[in-house]
Amino acid sequence: MTYCVALLLDQGIVMLSDTRTNAGVDNIATFSKLAVVERPGERVIAVLSAGNLAITQAAVTRAIEGASAPIGADAPRTLANAQTMFEAARVLGEAVREVYAHDGKALEAQDYAFDANFLIAGQIKSERMRLFQVYSAGNFIESTPDTPFFQIGEHKYGKPILDRVARFDIPLEDAVKLACISLDSTLRSNLTVGLPADIVIYRRDALKLASRKRILSDDPYFNSIREGWSHALRNAYRELPPPPWPMS
Amino acid sequence: MTYCVALLLDQGIVMLSDTRTNAGVDNIATFSKLAVVERPGERVIAVLSAGNLAITQAAVTRAIEGASAPIGADAPRTLANAQTMFEAARVLGEAVREVYAHDGKALEAQDYAFDANFLIAGQIKSERMRLFQVYSAGNFIESTPDTPFFQIGEHKYGKPILDRVARFDIPLEDAVKLACISLDSTLRSNLTVGLPADIVIYRRDALKLASRKRILSDDPYFNSIREGWSHALRNAYRELPPPPWPMS
Repeated sequence: MTYCVALLLDQGIVMLSDTRTNAGVDNIATFSKLAVVERPGERVIAVLSAGNLAITQAAVTRAIEGASAPIGADAPRTLANAQTMFEAARVLGEAVREVYAHDGKALEAQDYAFDANFLIAGQIKSERMRLFQVYSAGNFIESTPDTPFFQIGEHKYGKPILDRVARFDIPLEDAVKLACISLDSTLRSNLTVGLPADIVIYRRDALKLASRKRILSDDPYFNSIREGWSHALRNAYRELPPPPWPMS
Repeated sequence: MTYCVALLLDQGIVMLSDTRTNAGVDNIATFSKLAVVERPGERVIAVLSAGNLAITQAAVTRAIEGASAPIGADAPRTLANAQTMFEAARVLGEAVREVYAHDGKALEAQDYAFDANFLIAGQIKSERMRLFQVYSAGNFIESTPDTPFFQIGEHKYGKPILDRVARFDIPLEDAVKLACISLDSTLRSNLTVGLPADIVIYRRDALKLASRKRILSDDPYFNSIREGWSHALRNAYRELPPPPWPMS
């Protein structure tokens, strides 16, 4: 399983993902689910993937490198040369459809679902920052200030805190905390989501990443969030009023 | 959808369930998913149900009233005359199997899953309190102090707080708070779980319910939990340390 969350805020973008893949609970491995295309001063695009790893790797690779074009043809559109973020989302969606055309029938013959979801976000030149969720059919939706985050993979455990406090106008620092809290809740409740995690932080109009970091299990900051949050939750529930109903 | 949670603690039992049923998001109704068999001084047994309402109603009715026995045969085992809580869980499991035998083929012919899960808990005479989760196949598992709660239905949103703080030795009052918090998280994130809710509270060896209450949307206590919890979470996340990573 996988947990990926992306927040698009007034101040910037935060994207966080675990790195655990599993084919059954007894076959666990570590793969980054984050891909970044960065040309400082020109574009930053980050992609998070959930689903069948063979499908998501193939689609992201196609989106970044381009499928081989016939000699003499124009260079294919890729995440490196898309003119807008909307076009970048379309490039990724087309790449997913190409993988489906190539592998879909063989997967279906063995009863494997064509399972692939993506979050793609970033900024190109003077265009505004944008965040999209791309589905396995290659179509996609865009985040708006009303709904400033998307999750893919094992999304439910980490969603309550996002539903409560994720808003378009929170500071970028708070979005990093929120992403870490929601990952922590998921890690605690689902063994197939696991550290290390990958996080990228982007501040609006910078056209370069502020941070790209791998969070290991001994990361002091992530552990301070885990412990602080756990402690705060325990305190919070202790301080809630006792029920007024008869207890005996 | 449904949310049901039951906690079995050293001090007693708390069971909470929403009342929303839906056949599609445009066909919503209110049905209690709680059934209680209580003979003060002798037994208290409560059952929560999730799944296909026709199946769960049929199974619980059979477990409480008994399937009609042939004239001259012994009275059937029911939740009212089971000698132990283990036998009560078996009675409910057998009832589920009878419903499957009666309706399973017709449901399958129309591609409906045989979807039914139950939590059954209580105490009979001098026996200890027990909590079981009964599956659609009629088999069941029992809660132990290591895992003092079970959830059925839409369980993921409300699970993180239970994973963090539900322990066998917490006071009964705290278990009521926890159940309310976990319901609140579920209500916020899944529209097909809705108020009113039903709660029962049982204190060990009382052999009568301490409380059985319907929580309406204007319930002052439940609303104080909702607001207090929301407030505490916002504060908690604000007070966590900011990330030490470069933010620009």
